[in-house]
Amino acid sequence: MTTQQIDLARFIRDIPDWPKEGILFRDITPLLLDPQALRVGVDAMCAPYQDLGVDYVAAVEARGFVFGTAVAAQLNAGFIPIRKKGKLPFETVSVTYDLEYGTDTIEMHCDAVPAKAKILMVDDLLATGGTMKAACDLIEKVEGDIVGITCLIELTDLAGRQRLADYDIHTVISY
Amino acid sequence: MTTQQIDLARFIRDIPDWPKEGILFRDITPLLLDPQALRVGVDAMCAPYQDLGVDYVAAVEARGFVFGTAVAAQLNAGFIPIRKKGKLPFETVSVTYDLEYGTDTIEMHCDAVPAKAKILMVDDLLATGGTMKAACDLIEKVEGDIVGITCLIELTDLAGRQRLADYDIHTVISY
Repeated sequence: MTTQQIDLARFIRDIPDWPKEGILFRDITPLLLDPQALRVGVDAMCAPYQDLGVDYVAAVEARGFVFGTAVAAQLNAGFIPIRKKGKLPFETVSVTYDLEYGTDTIEMHCDAVPAKAKILMVDDLLATGGTMKAACDLIEKVEGDIVGITCLIELTDLAGRQRLADYDIHTVISY
Repeated sequence: MTTQQIDLARFIRDIPDWPKEGILFRDITPLLLDPQALRVGVDAMCAPYQDLGVDYVAAVEARGFVFGTAVAAQLNAGFIPIRKKGKLPFETVSVTYDLEYGTDTIEMHCDAVPAKAKILMVDDLLATGGTMKAACDLIEKVEGDIVGITCLIELTDLAGRQRLADYDIHTVISY
């Protein structure tokens, strides 16, 4: 079964005015609930990177974790959890980045990435790319080699792809 | 490769005095980083439930998501994300439960669980079992049938197993 044989977009539910008025939210939970759609979705996220020797998959909590380990297992790679400030128990490296209002900080363990390791970045959704850019900065701060970014959904109007123009980007469903 | 052939416990890092003095934290991130240990760990979490017809795997953010989808994919099941209050976009059902200080609320979509669906509960760690008990209550509120609880690590001193005595519980590494 390949993505050609199943229409993944029909498992995405549109929620108008969430999280605020005027926003059309793309809800992936119906896709997660369907075993075949979930498997095909994970396969499609992995496909371009299957033979590139990915050492680790990295993802930011919480929504990035939904696909992170599944993609890592499929690629026979390890998984690097990137968390919000103060949640990881060992020594960390961090990046602080701007949000619409204020800033946020993400961290990973200082020993998570051997230098020159090949890293695939994973998230469920590519929107403005702000958090993904911070995650890429974090990986490169310790000399990880980012081979690409893969997301289930891309909201093209929000121009995350332009913000992340330095990287190979693969998305499965575009709006 | 089976759990008999790899010592998963050697991939767990002990962190003294975290998150507070006197607590010995069991850090799973070295296991996540190792592709073989990650795969064997996921296999071991799934093993007792492989032939029980699990329809869905349910897990609570953020740490539960680390293994949730990987276990679901392995069991050819769907994945039900359980989130903290206010993060899910569609109509939800919720459970509020007591913490050491105060309360917390977890939610899932009201249409996540068809009645009588067979559900496997997943988390990285079984400690006091407080959050897991709330998650089980949430599933049963909509008449889901919990076939078991599987966690990578169990802290036996904290007696989560006793608190969850109504359920079949499987853990891979016990302390």
